[in-house]
Formats: sequence, structure tokens, C-alpha cells
Amino acid sequence: MPASEVYRLIEPGPVVLLTTRAEDGAADVMTMSWHMMVEFVPPLIACIVSEGDYSFQALDATGECVIAIPGLELAEKVVAIGNCSGRDTDKFTTFGLTALEAQRVRAPLVGEAFANLECRVADRTLKAKYNLFVLEVVAAWRDGRDPAPATIHHHGYGRFVADGAPLTLASRMP
Amino acid sequence: MPASEVYRLIEPGPVVLLTTRAEDGAADVMTMSWHMMVEFVPPLIACIVSEGDYSFQALDATGECVIAIPGLELAEKVVAIGNCSGRDTDKFTTFGLTALEAQRVRAPLVGEAFANLECRVADRTLKAKYNLFVLEVVAAWRDGRDPAPATIHHHGYGRFVADGAPLTLASRMP
Repeated sequence: MPASEVYRLIEPGPVVLLTTRAEDGAADVMTMSWHMMVEFVPPLIACIVSEGDYSFQALDATGECVIAIPGLELAEKVVAIGNCSGRDTDKFTTFGLTALEAQRVRAPLVGEAFANLECRVADRTLKAKYNLFVLEVVAAWRDGRDPAPATIHHHGYGRFVADGAPLTLASRMP
Repeated sequence: MPASEVYRLIEPGPVVLLTTRAEDGAADVMTMSWHMMVEFVPPLIACIVSEGDYSFQALDATGECVIAIPGLELAEKVVAIGNCSGRDTDKFTTFGLTALEAQRVRAPLVGEAFANLECRVADRTLKAKYNLFVLEVVAAWRDGRDPAPATIHHHGYGRFVADGAPLTLASRMP
């Protein structure tokens, strides 16, 4: 998909998956909701990956990850992925996710997600202070079968909301 | 509302309003979707306020703002607020919004929003590079009448999605 369209996936605030591949080759995936767009083109995305998250080490060491955007039908898996750690679980195998080869990074795409964003860490200025990484999207993939898949949004303590009715309003904003 | 509950409002990625009060006393309000949680307590929120936005100057000069969270019933006003600029429009008057006095900052609360977060700028490290501000929520207000008001999410080019069905899943995440 075009880089200029990436913000339309992240701006609505979906729960996403973040994959990494450690230097030893092991792939991992975590669940993440603390992310935002920073720039349209090239697409920059800020996110918080806590030092306590198992993915932190691989993300920081390799400077690469994939943000995969799951549809509503993956909601139970997405939550289960967030409930365990790559320290003791091979999550791709456990949750039956298909790790596909990415084009520009070593971290895997998630075959079951409807969109995948290959990312490189662009800025670590606020990493030490807030665990904040700025990522640049270097390649983006979208499954075009469903033009508007429903995503999920996290409200805390196991409460989520699925996307509901679409609204079209006369916005001059991109 | 307790500071520890603030992330439950921002993490789902709603379109929000950001109010400021310039040093000359003029209140303004803009529409914003590029924001994320950074820390639970004290609640820290990162956001992008572009140098081209009229609110940038007041936010940067005063270091204060309010993030107001509008429900679905305000969707048309929220878009109209994003379609014009405080440079030539008194938006509170034009859109019939009630500017209420905040407790800890000079920027006004929005009476019609179901939640209001009084914020102070906590970090400008990435302001010059990305227009990125880290805000600390210093007081938070929530209208308790509707326990789960529907919010809106921006998909670009006038397309929005309203919150739909709630899901409860066995998450161990806060």
C-alpha cells in the first residue's frame, strides 16, 4: 500500500501486534495499544515498548519490527498474546500465527492480520526516559479483500470496543 | 476522576478536542487524533500539535491545555472545529461550546465533552523535530451519567467510525 495511506490505519487507535526477530533468529509478537502517528510521509509512528516487555530487547538491539493490524476476528488471540511473554512462550506457534517473510526488515509479518507495516527505529531520544520509540514505516502491506475491516480498541481491564457504524462527515483534514 | 483511570480514555484512540488559552486570554479549541498514552501515573500523554496549527503558539507559550473527549453526538461539531482556524474564528462561540473554568490550568474545559483532562507540558524534547509534546494530566473530570459513551475514530478524508459493540475478554493487562 502507498506510504501516504498508512496514517489511516494507525490514527483510529486500534489494538495492534508488534513483531520482532531477535539476533538469534527467534520471532516474537506482543500486543500494543500505546502508539500514535507522528508524520504522514515518510510515515512515522511513535510507540511505547516497556523495558519490561520481552520484545524491548529485540526491538532495541535490531532496530526493526513489524506492526500488524488484526481484525476483530483475531480479538481473542490478540488478548491471549498480551497475557503471556515471549520469555517462556513461542507465541507464533502457540497461537497458530503465520510468520511471513518481510521485504525490508527481519521481523516477520503476521499472515492473519489485514495490514502489516515494516518499521525501522528512527529515533530513540526518549527511549531512556519514557520507553518511547519513533518508528519509520519502510514498507506497508494490506490485504484488500475487506475494504473496511473492524478493529478493536482497548479500554482497560479486559474491556474492548469493536468498530461500529461508519460516519462520513465533510472534513477538510486528510 | 482518579489519575490511574485516565489511560482508559486515551488508549482507545478517540478523536479529541484540545483547548488552549493564549496569554491575551483568548480561548481556542482544535481537533486532534495524533495522541497516545506514555505513562499510567502520573498520566502522561504524547501528542502532535503542528507548528501550522493556531493552537501551537498558545500551547507552547503557556505550557497548558485541556484534552476534552467528545461523545458521538458531537461528531459534526468536532469535524467543523477541525475545518477552521482560531486565527479567524472564535470557535467556542461559533460552535456553541461552553468554556468552563479548569482547576489547575487556564485553558478551558469543554462543558459538552464527557471527559476533560487538564494538562501541563512536561517535555518538549521532540518539539522541534516532530512537533511532539509530552503532557502531564494534572486534573481529570468525567461526566458519570453515561458509563460508556461512544466516541469516534478518524480514518482520514472525512471517514470516521463510531464505537460499536463492547467485548469483554480475559485480559491480564491493566
